Amino acid sequence: MTGLFITLEGGEGAGKTSAVPLLAARLEEEGYQVLSTREPGGIEIAEAIRAVILDPSNTKMDGRTEALLYAAARRQHLVEKVWPALEKGMIVLCDRFVDSSLAYQGYTRGLGMEEVMEINRFAVESTMPDLTLFFDISPKEGLARISENKGREKNRLDLETLSFHERVYEGYKILQEQYKDRFVALDAAKPLAEVAEEAVQAIMTFLKQK
Amino acid sequence: MTGLFITLEGGEGAGKTSAVPLLAARLEEEGYQVLSTREPGGIEIAEAIRAVILDPSNTKMDGRTEALLYAAARRQHLVEKVWPALEKGMIVLCDRFVDSSLAYQGYTRGLGMEEVMEINRFAVESTMPDLTLFFDISPKEGLARISENKGREKNRLDLETLSFHERVYEGYKILQEQYKDRFVALDAAKPLAEVAEEAVQAIMTFLKQK
Repeated sequence: MTGLFITLEGGEGAGKTSAVPLLAARLEEEGYQVLSTREPGGIEIAEAIRAVILDPSNTKMDGRTEALLYAAARRQHLVEKVWPALEKGMIVLCDRFVDSSLAYQGYTRGLGMEEVMEINRFAVESTMPDLTLFFDISPKEGLARISENKGREKNRLDLETLSFHERVYEGYKILQEQYKDRFVALDAAKPLAEVAEEAVQAIMTFLKQK
Repeated sequence: MTGLFITLEGGEGAGKTSAVPLLAARLEEEGYQVLSTREPGGIEIAEAIRAVILDPSNTKMDGRTEALLYAAARRQHLVEKVWPALEKGMIVLCDRFVDSSLAYQGYTRGLGMEEVMEINRFAVESTMPDLTLFFDISPKEGLARISENKGREKNRLDLETLSFHERVYEGYKILQEQYKDRFVALDAAKPLAEVAEEAVQAIMTFLKQK
């Protein structure tokens, strides 16, 4: 595969999702073909799996069941959307990937990072991100941003306690150490345009070294 | 957990499903409390997962996506149905379990038995069957039975080629060797009543040794 697989990771309110279109636009200006995506990404089977996960009547869902379902949706999104784009040589910008499962389910929910990695290894085979942009912001600042942003629809994770988000942050810090080679931390407390520019520079540096 | 977890395994037409009620009745006569089940077993989340797997419009489902979905449904069925019964000290008779995934998806579909075992280990944790009744019948004889049985609704597996079913049988033979301690092979070519009686004897022998 000749493309470049870039993931965006970080806690709630870190600005990942807002950064994606800015990043994509800048990369396209530089002449790259870009696919911006996130799981389940409009993939029919992955959307159906997501619907099972998010069905509010499924209150009894076990944490491991949920982790297996996320891995299944991830697999199908890779097969149908990410791999074909990478094969065409595109830059894929993916809002959350394996690291989110490791930080949220493996670390914060207590399933174990290594154990969650195992089922994800089955799902993704050898496809890990070439580069992971870690939107580094303190959980307090991230949550403050969310509460200021009136347009944002609250998701299940936004409603968790501060200590939950602090655990998530700890989880990401462990991943940053563990995957030094692909993790690039961005100071996500800065204004969005600056963070996006920092991200573009990180990608350009990576492309030059490649 | 104080109960006994017994799984029934084997290819199509081996008679597992017909044997379950006979076995349950005999064990109840002996004074045991019995839960007869099979995945997804009426568990709401597991049924929803199953519906995704079997939706005929999902023609593009990747083999690994499917294996992860089966593992997810298995997990939820264990949590909601099997574990509570084992905790009550019941004998659980489960029509197919991990070995089916290993024989069908791991071996026959070529995903790899060890790899499929890994995601199932995540799903079941330390819960493996105490005893596995392997309904041993040649694929040819099994398929001949199915075609004679006009009342049986053909499932997706019944419609596979003979060589597919021969591979499944090979897979089971490997598992029988690998899990000697819990596998008991029954001569499933015999009449159903005899096979069921043989199964009851195997269970009784196991209970006495326990």
